[in-house]
Amino acid sequence: MRIVELDGLKYERTNPGAAIKIAALSFFHLFFPKEIRSMNVSTVEPETETAQPGPKRGRPMEAPATRLVDRAARQGRTVVRVGEVEIGAGRPAVIAGPCSVESYSQTLEAARAVKAAGAVILRGGAYKPRTSPYDFQGLGLEALLILQRVRKETQLPVVSEVLSTEDVDRVAEHVDMLQVGARNMQNFALLRRLGRTPKPVLLKRSPAATVQEWLMAAEYILAGGNDQVVLCERGIRSYDPQLRNTFDLAGMALARQLSHLPAIADPSHATGRRDLIPAMSRAALAAGADGLMIEVHPDPGSALSDGSQSMDLPGFAQMMETLRR
Amino acid sequence: MRIVELDGLKYERTNPGAAIKIAALSFFHLFFPKEIRSMNVSTVEPETETAQPGPKRGRPMEAPATRLVDRAARQGRTVVRVGEVEIGAGRPAVIAGPCSVESYSQTLEAARAVKAAGAVILRGGAYKPRTSPYDFQGLGLEALLILQRVRKETQLPVVSEVLSTEDVDRVAEHVDMLQVGARNMQNFALLRRLGRTPKPVLLKRSPAATVQEWLMAAEYILAGGNDQVVLCERGIRSYDPQLRNTFDLAGMALARQLSHLPAIADPSHATGRRDLIPAMSRAALAAGADGLMIEVHPDPGSALSDGSQSMDLPGFAQMMETLRR
Amino acid sequence: MRIVELDGLKYERTNPGAAIKIAALSFFHLFFPKEIRSMNVSTVEPETETAQPGPKRGRPMEAPATRLVDRAARQGRTVVRVGEVEIGAGRPAVIAGPCSVESYSQTLEAARAVKAAGAVILRGGAYKPRTSPYDFQGLGLEALLILQRVRKETQLPVVSEVLSTEDVDRVAEHVDMLQVGARNMQNFALLRRLGRTPKPVLLKRSPAATVQEWLMAAEYILAGGNDQVVLCERGIRSYDPQLRNTFDLAGMALARQLSHLPAIADPSHATGRRDLIPAMSRAALAAGADGLMIEVHPDPGSALSDGSQSMDLPGFAQMMETLRR
Amino acid sequence: MRIVELDGLKYERTNPGAAIKIAALSFFHLFFPKEIRSMNVSTVEPETETAQPGPKRGRPMEAPATRLVDRAARQGRTVVRVGEVEIGAGRPAVIAGPCSVESYSQTLEAARAVKAAGAVILRGGAYKPRTSPYDFQGLGLEALLILQRVRKETQLPVVSEVLSTEDVDRVAEHVDMLQVGARNMQNFALLRRLGRTPKPVLLKRSPAATVQEWLMAAEYILAGGNDQVVLCERGIRSYDPQLRNTFDLAGMALARQLSHLPAIADPSHATGRRDLIPAMSRAALAAGADGLMIEVHPDPGSALSDGSQSMDLPGFAQMMETLRR
Repeated sequence: MRIVELDGLKYERTNPGAAIKIAALSFFHLFFPKEIRSMNVSTVEPETETAQPGPKRGRPMEAPATRLVDRAARQGRTVVRVGEVEIGAGRPAVIAGPCSVESYSQTLEAARAVKAAGAVILRGGAYKPRTSPYDFQGLGLEALLILQRVRKETQLPVVSEVLSTEDVDRVAEHVDMLQVGARNMQNFALLRRLGRTPKPVLLKRSPAATVQEWLMAAEYILAGGNDQVVLCERGIRSYDPQLRNTFDLAGMALARQLSHLPAIADPSHATGRRDLIPAMSRAALAAGADGLMIEVHPDPGSALSDGSQSMDLPGFAQMMETLRR
Repeated sequence: MRIVELDGLKYERTNPGAAIKIAALSFFHLFFPKEIRSMNVSTVEPETETAQPGPKRGRPMEAPATRLVDRAARQGRTVVRVGEVEIGAGRPAVIAGPCSVESYSQTLEAARAVKAAGAVILRGGAYKPRTSPYDFQGLGLEALLILQRVRKETQLPVVSEVLSTEDVDRVAEHVDMLQVGARNMQNFALLRRLGRTPKPVLLKRSPAATVQEWLMAAEYILAGGNDQVVLCERGIRSYDPQLRNTFDLAGMALARQLSHLPAIADPSHATGRRDLIPAMSRAALAAGADGLMIEVHPDPGSALSDGSQSMDLPGFAQMMETLRR
Repeated sequence: MRIVELDGLKYERTNPGAAIKIAALSFFHLFFPKEIRSMNVSTVEPETETAQPGPKRGRPMEAPATRLVDRAARQGRTVVRVGEVEIGAGRPAVIAGPCSVESYSQTLEAARAVKAAGAVILRGGAYKPRTSPYDFQGLGLEALLILQRVRKETQLPVVSEVLSTEDVDRVAEHVDMLQVGARNMQNFALLRRLGRTPKPVLLKRSPAATVQEWLMAAEYILAGGNDQVVLCERGIRSYDPQLRNTFDLAGMALARQLSHLPAIADPSHATGRRDLIPAMSRAALAAGADGLMIEVHPDPGSALSDGSQSMDLPGFAQMMETLRR
Repeated sequence: MRIVELDGLKYERTNPGAAIKIAALSFFHLFFPKEIRSMNVSTVEPETETAQPGPKRGRPMEAPATRLVDRAARQGRTVVRVGEVEIGAGRPAVIAGPCSVESYSQTLEAARAVKAAGAVILRGGAYKPRTSPYDFQGLGLEALLILQRVRKETQLPVVSEVLSTEDVDRVAEHVDMLQVGARNMQNFALLRRLGRTPKPVLLKRSPAATVQEWLMAAEYILAGGNDQVVLCERGIRSYDPQLRNTFDLAGMALARQLSHLPAIADPSHATGRRDLIPAMSRAALAAGADGLMIEVHPDPGSALSDGSQSMDLPGFAQMMETLRR
């Protein structure tokens, strides 16, 4: 750490990066070259310049000069392997299936149809995070067993959400990829636990997270030793009652630019409207998405969760046609 | 207006649409068919059920059963003509040029380059809305004369922003299309005045407007007799410091779906980052945009406004190449 | 303007304040003393360091070293005089009255009641900004004449909104204070025009404006020569459907801290809920508000606009009692 | 469940509350009496009217006609007991202390000072949720032991955050109240686990949660059998870089109005600015808050976390003086 003087003001530079401390300035503009428009701003007291905090016992690890998620941390982009499927290797991977696993026949029917239409990974919720404790909470272990059977029959690898550190082993035993839901993006105990599993992780963005906070959540997993992380944009909180969320495709593109990790998009949750999913799927791929995650149900009208944003089987097949063009 | 009873509750239906008034309900869920997920909710006092407000003298016109902007109001989509260019007729129209008109040579150089690259309309600010009164405010009439000369030389029609009712005639005299900026989207005096001009209008979305509020702003113009309105999405207010705004492509797609008016996208303002413009331009077209509006400057580093989000001439030409693929 | 070098990087300082340009930095944290946590960040191209833009003809005035709105620009706080009433002199000023002027009797009844309850300025809309062109738009000149009569009878000074530069003279002739609505906060033509009137101005905050943008809007008025400006917080855009807006009292307190201008709060628009207005009025005064603006209607159920957030006369009187405690 | 017809449309009412399904409506306005402005809207397919989903095996419990958090669910307001302190019984309870427990002497000094100034509960972080894995993560068990010693010496009951289901027993053993952080508000596994502890819970609002989502998170805890829950508003996501969050006092007041649970406010996190904490504390109490939570550090400049928003000991004592007036 070094302190220098510039025009009567004191500046201090630290690593990682350069930290500049300005002691006596009352108002100013900062102009940056475009590459570093991102920055974290925080305030310190002028008198802290010489503060010498003791050893930070709570800090579990030294910060690397380059974060593990940063593009500069490795050559080329990371490819995440889910079963035999590669995400981030160039060909967009479509993940599809019902919001919730409701029965063997519903899941099998959905799996066969989405595979025939071109999807390469099956999604299906076993443990469902729900705003209300009185809503359907998922079939739990029964759903995991259904997913395992359907995987065997269709040869589709499976992704399912894990809600708690206590469920990680059980879910990991039955599926090929573990999903962290948007509401758990900063459940740091869960992120740390996933850093120690051998399974790939799908990390959804929280509806109030900046791109940097999302990347830092991924950093928790990478710092634990697991670099098989796929980022998933699913919409940020919106004030418009006609859209469930605001689909932040520029945020997804920015995440892909700042990081070597693959990033996919979930237009089902991002819009909450079946009628917008085809247009938004095309937009996501045009923006560089490494894949899509789409809710598909054999009978959306009877779905136990998220029916209004689920596509039916013919609708999904038709949309997949237009994506190939 | 009729009042009916249902299960002990009173409901009232009015036009346009159906208005239902529920007098004594303490908590409920509403389920709608997907097509009508949009709705306006407001509250009234129980005691107002029999209120008989007098003639609403301030209401300037009767509300039509279908709003003029609604898709159902006409057959097919509206095509807006700007000079010889058609927006909404199928082929995406790219509008490009400098944020501000700074000089004849700068404008001419930009115009020739963007035309060569495939742009069909020139943009250039003469009157600039600026957060600070001490920032560059545009060259005003001088800029309008420059735009007129450049239009003549390049045969590109021109769009420029109008800030005030008092400027409408002067700007309309020199350019082919009048732009309403995001901060004026609900400047109703200006909207009414533009309803009476014969020139097409580019209506930018306010950074805090819902899609319905945006359409209602267009309704002001249409209700005045001018149906040549192009909607332009340019980002809504974001909490992420790395992005100038949140690019709401789903909002743009929804506006196109609800209305017959063409809608274009402005990735320059929506992201504020030159490096994201190509990806977001491709995404906008994939989402169905009828065109793009992009800031291009011969020397972005010396631009008097918005330099950091302006593309340079070779960068723009290169991006246009990728859009054609 | 001076360019200095620090540790191999180039910095440039300009006025007002200090501008620092950093040419070759890839990532950094900035730590500030708390007083300057505010800042404007923008990006420039590295190559612009030596750019010499010509004379900025569009800049109407030199930027002062200290903005006119800044607390440091004058000793003590500004007191704004509306008729005989002082806003910002210590005693909170309550502005109350109907959203819209609907008739002479309605306005007179409201004025007498709010005066008896302790309000010192009458509000009443003559020209109403409405999302829909088919909604009640205000009685216009008729309303101004009603306000003038009621002012004479009750001796209450009057504030009313002005929507357009063209209306400024007419409204100013009939009322004591001119209101700029939230949707016109960055209608710069209107702000400039109000800088040249001798009447005080009530400047509402836009629902998407930062505190700095709000202060810069006031700067337009002050820069024109009129320093009689009262800031009014009325809520920023919210994602919660149960509240019309998010009441940003910390933003109001921050504006009062950064500026010498008085600031008041409008809990009617900020919450959209009559039942929250008393608690939020008390909170605003506790946070330092120089006054309140509250919608009151003799018969809210029959109000032509904003009935659901209007208090009735006894409710208002009762609330005023609790504010005095 | 009953289906009725109204004017050719089909409506269906269910419990809890009344659910109305409208099958063939293309556009409408809904007017409600003010008490029920809140509502949940979702979409269903017209064809689902006769759908008969099977037994919802995943639903863990029957929804009560009135939610447990609703004001109507009990007579009077809930009083939460933390040691000998009552929250919600009328006298505002001030919780204060350092963001993180850093050492015994720091914690003891802070505890003695805040007690002398009038605080009745000590806060102190043992397990810290941090955006970056490289930031200080709290002293963990060592901090819990420090809190226990300081509690014994000062007789102040203690609240500390719990990050994970696995930590619940350990934290509960050492402290008097368990805090759920904003980022864990919808960590449903944690909420369910806390429903089965005998300790009171402080439930912070997520920065993107509606008031209803916040109440539903509390419902998870109450449904598990623990009704000792205090709601804590700590700011929602803001776009203004000068404020860490937007302090939503109206949301807090609304939560208190809808629920019988006590609600307190945390101006430290809500504003991120020490200079605004006194004004916002006064505002929160004026808005009806049952208490405050404030970060206080003997030497904010050397704090290992959140120093810029921590008050020092004299500043806190001085503010407490002003609250008593």
